[in-house]
Amino acid sequence: MMKNSFKSVIPETTLRRMVYYIRCLNSFKKEGVELIQSEDIAKKCGVKSSIVRKDLSYFGEFGVRGKGYDVASLLDTINGIIKTFGQMNAILVGAGKLGSAIIKHSSENFNVKIVAAFDKDKRKVNKIIEETRIYPLSEIEGIVREKKVKIAIIAIPPSDVQSVVDILVKAGIKAILSLALIPINVPDDVEVSFVDVLSEVEFLFYKLSLRRNR
Amino acid sequence: MMKNSFKSVIPETTLRRMVYYIRCLNSFKKEGVELIQSEDIAKKCGVKSSIVRKDLSYFGEFGVRGKGYDVASLLDTINGIIKTFGQMNAILVGAGKLGSAIIKHSSENFNVKIVAAFDKDKRKVNKIIEETRIYPLSEIEGIVREKKVKIAIIAIPPSDVQSVVDILVKAGIKAILSLALIPINVPDDVEVSFVDVLSEVEFLFYKLSLRRNR
Repeated sequence: MMKNSFKSVIPETTLRRMVYYIRCLNSFKKEGVELIQSEDIAKKCGVKSSIVRKDLSYFGEFGVRGKGYDVASLLDTINGIIKTFGQMNAILVGAGKLGSAIIKHSSENFNVKIVAAFDKDKRKVNKIIEETRIYPLSEIEGIVREKKVKIAIIAIPPSDVQSVVDILVKAGIKAILSLALIPINVPDDVEVSFVDVLSEVEFLFYKLSLRRNR
Repeated sequence: MMKNSFKSVIPETTLRRMVYYIRCLNSFKKEGVELIQSEDIAKKCGVKSSIVRKDLSYFGEFGVRGKGYDVASLLDTINGIIKTFGQMNAILVGAGKLGSAIIKHSSENFNVKIVAAFDKDKRKVNKIIEETRIYPLSEIEGIVREKKVKIAIIAIPPSDVQSVVDILVKAGIKAILSLALIPINVPDDVEVSFVDVLSEVEFLFYKLSLRRNR
């Protein structure tokens, strides 16, 4: 019920920030902070406080005027939504520096579990990074089907991206996060998302350049 | 003139997507594509086509009804804006797997140049990754001032983040991109932005879970 009402009204940009808020709120919780102002969340998440207030309003009435937000109940609600995601198993293709860093990050921190990694380099196959084994690309389809994985992260050279994407789609993957910012062709029922560190840096340059011209 | 009119009206979310559009458009250009539909850009960038049309409308009239967008002139305009960013020199703190991957990425691809890297691990100091030298943290302030760098990328363990941020701010850094999604305290004149791969993966799980419940 609650969920159905959520999905019809919460904008995608709010949902995207939600996972960021969780990190901030967990951090506040660890510090023993019980009540918090939207300005504090804003600053620590790098989001404007007016946006924080609007975002949080979609999840219910957490704010107490003059006192701020109750960290614990806000976390409970957002974590409740997160739980509806199901077990967050993903695979990773590309066990180079970036891929290895992602496996390590996932083993240390959060909700996403990398259940298998794949690499075309035979020297990497069968190695284990933080409990995640590296398989050859030829095993993608079998493992995706066996483990019922729906999401793949790809950290591979641009020239390999489309051929790997085709394998993933054929195997039944329904969402791909690419760390190479090059165009990808997928069927309409497959979600694609991109993360690119240097694009974010360019955006920061843009913000600073605006400031210089003010 | 043009720039001033831009900055007053273009929303931040549009600006953020702009750097993504450049990647897509460059890719189309390489393929020899001259005219393109918003749907094509949308699909390759992972953005809705209605959003693409709205975003591009901020930059001028590029669309020709029924024919699509002129790839070359769109690129010229966006690259013109990018040039106003100035030379995009940045430093990197943390030359582990993730940091090294970012240096390599920057050396291969785009506009951002990593002019120096820093690490607290003495065994890494003085090594060179793709022409970028690794220095000890004690040299941050001198090098930032000497090279007049305003932007820093940090790829370090959460427990080190705030102390490194304090050094960066003292050295005159005005924008920080953190790859650890933990709260950061900075003065009001310092921009902070976060990139976190696993958060993006969680967001994809969210999108798939909505679809299952449709």
